[in-house]
Amino acid sequence: MIPGKETEAIRAAGRRMDMLGWVPATAGNISVRLGDGRIAITRSGFHKGFIPEDGVMTVDLNGRPEQSDLRPSAETGLHCGIYRRFSQAGAVLHGHSVAATVLSRQAGAAITLADYELLKAFPGLPTHDAAIDLPVLDNDQDIERLQSRVTQIWDAVPQAPPGYLIRGHGVYVWADDMPGALLRLEALEFMLACELQSRRSP
Amino acid sequence: MIPGKETEAIRAAGRRMDMLGWVPATAGNISVRLGDGRIAITRSGFHKGFIPEDGVMTVDLNGRPEQSDLRPSAETGLHCGIYRRFSQAGAVLHGHSVAATVLSRQAGAAITLADYELLKAFPGLPTHDAAIDLPVLDNDQDIERLQSRVTQIWDAVPQAPPGYLIRGHGVYVWADDMPGALLRLEALEFMLACELQSRRSP
Amino acid sequence: MIPGKETEAIRAAGRRMDMLGWVPATAGNISVRLGDGRIAITRSGFHKGFIPEDGVMTVDLNGRPEQSDLRPSAETGLHCGIYRRFSQAGAVLHGHSVAATVLSRQAGAAITLADYELLKAFPGLPTHDAAIDLPVLDNDQDIERLQSRVTQIWDAVPQAPPGYLIRGHGVYVWADDMPGALLRLEALEFMLACELQSRRSP
Amino acid sequence: MIPGKETEAIRAAGRRMDMLGWVPATAGNISVRLGDGRIAITRSGFHKGFIPEDGVMTVDLNGRPEQSDLRPSAETGLHCGIYRRFSQAGAVLHGHSVAATVLSRQAGAAITLADYELLKAFPGLPTHDAAIDLPVLDNDQDIERLQSRVTQIWDAVPQAPPGYLIRGHGVYVWADDMPGALLRLEALEFMLACELQSRRSP
Repeated sequence: MIPGKETEAIRAAGRRMDMLGWVPATAGNISVRLGDGRIAITRSGFHKGFIPEDGVMTVDLNGRPEQSDLRPSAETGLHCGIYRRFSQAGAVLHGHSVAATVLSRQAGAAITLADYELLKAFPGLPTHDAAIDLPVLDNDQDIERLQSRVTQIWDAVPQAPPGYLIRGHGVYVWADDMPGALLRLEALEFMLACELQSRRSP
Repeated sequence: MIPGKETEAIRAAGRRMDMLGWVPATAGNISVRLGDGRIAITRSGFHKGFIPEDGVMTVDLNGRPEQSDLRPSAETGLHCGIYRRFSQAGAVLHGHSVAATVLSRQAGAAITLADYELLKAFPGLPTHDAAIDLPVLDNDQDIERLQSRVTQIWDAVPQAPPGYLIRGHGVYVWADDMPGALLRLEALEFMLACELQSRRSP
Repeated sequence: MIPGKETEAIRAAGRRMDMLGWVPATAGNISVRLGDGRIAITRSGFHKGFIPEDGVMTVDLNGRPEQSDLRPSAETGLHCGIYRRFSQAGAVLHGHSVAATVLSRQAGAAITLADYELLKAFPGLPTHDAAIDLPVLDNDQDIERLQSRVTQIWDAVPQAPPGYLIRGHGVYVWADDMPGALLRLEALEFMLACELQSRRSP
Repeated sequence: MIPGKETEAIRAAGRRMDMLGWVPATAGNISVRLGDGRIAITRSGFHKGFIPEDGVMTVDLNGRPEQSDLRPSAETGLHCGIYRRFSQAGAVLHGHSVAATVLSRQAGAAITLADYELLKAFPGLPTHDAAIDLPVLDNDQDIERLQSRVTQIWDAVPQAPPGYLIRGHGVYVWADDMPGALLRLEALEFMLACELQSRRSP
């Protein structure tokens, strides 16, 4: 059983992401870490703006479904990779915006965000006078291999960046809880929207 | 009589398409195949975001209205062309977005979509590492002639693409049922929106 | 007294125009011709997305207020110019979109719209294979002088175009009734949005 | 205690600004001057589209919180700077749009807005045939220093412009009351949106 509060938090996050245009078709997925350590995550194949009451299921930290007849989101392994690495992470959001998709397709290994007031929404950045390099990974249907590349990136830097992009596929962010994850997603998407506009009218 | 469930599915699809900006003025049209083989389709002249209860009518597979005093959507023949060709098709959507209109006016005979995660929303594409060529047909007020060109395109390829565009006029997509058709429309429009942005900031 | 139905039609049109982003701040105005020939028009100074119940007043065909203590929209003279010229005109809408504002600032004496399916939303255009020249007038705070230039344009062509733009200021459209006027406004704004996007990515 | 009416006006303004996309994550802040001279202002750390009932607090004209355990918005000093300077100012809005962020990052010391009908929404501009120079200040986490630069700008001109921008951070506007401040914010953001589009398709 998943506590009703957690299911509702996931469904409400999906509605908000849909309103903002970040979960087209069946794109995107959403999860929270439950009190007992299990992960509640959206099932595969649903529109995230209209998650039904039974559209959330549980997996363990390695992504194994508790109920073997249900299929979790295809990228469950990326959610679990985040929960295993960051013990404080309580919620993970994967969105699929036009800005993230377009910029990630044009980017190299990272997108640099600098001098935005909204950088303060990320941990460890008390000022706008800063820069972060958001990793951009090539898309891969082999999620285990994709997660191992994410881990390599985390291992290579002293502090992991507050999210990452998959090329042509969208962003991943996380935070202590769902409200915090939504704030980070909105901050990140806002800066990506600014970048997309800026690059066009230099 | 049209079953209330089907009428409501059509009206709800229209409201969603309006919210997303894809049915301006009286543009766009929506249909479903009923259990007895008839087609329920939006009547001509209404705004698809505000379809009245009597705004849906039935035609046969050749587009002939059951009630001769009602006028079906002008492009009924295109809907029927899809239902005749694809026996699994249960719903057809015709939307009219800015992205589809602008790109189709600038395109040649096709728009290629490649390396998008959302390509997986289309049948027979289990990976993003793929490409589809969406046909773009010149607009034509002679719907029979237009449908014959659509059929020619379908005949010329081993597998029909999951939709097509009419120049300056919008997109057509279909699926087994209405939820499936809406997912395909959202996936297609998302990728067209990305293409429109990408072509501007190369 | 203004019939409640007419007041509500004006308020609903304002809410729709606000949802579509076409009446920022106190911009835009809305009117209908009443059965007795008077014009019901939005009062000056209100946000058109939130017109109060007493936010509509009546003027005669020359724009003179029935209640001398109320101030009608600044461009009442343009509404009346339309009602005087076109005896069939039952509703007039003035919107203020980003696309209309930007394009009208960059245009010469007209904006040409051609080969759009949505041209069929305008009277006398049964096909997309057509073109209309929308007049663009220089802005002018002297509304009487502005209306006389509009009239000159109407006099110079065999059939008046279905609307016009004022530079940096927005569009005017009209139709037999309010639903018809909203359809024309949506069709026109859609094509202007397409033009704005097209000119950017040639 | 804050009068319920003032708290609700602040919360409603936040919902409107969120609907328009101007308060992503925890960005933006909102205040009103109470009848007794105190300032009611949003607390720090909340999403302004979802301000809770206890999300508003009071400070004096120098920004000192009445309740020492609550933390006001980080830029409270800028709100108070406006209230101290303009005795008629009854409400202050700070929004954070994509257009304002992108344009302010590209601008020099000011952004000039000219020949827009919506300039009439600003005080002392009865015509579109006018121009205003909106100051653009470099962002600074030292709010006192930032406010002193704002004051210098006000001191240097005969009439203070109706708002200002902080680079990469958004806009500040004010008016006699909350409805008036919202109208000015909408007018300003509309013109900035037009500028962003115009600069791209010259």
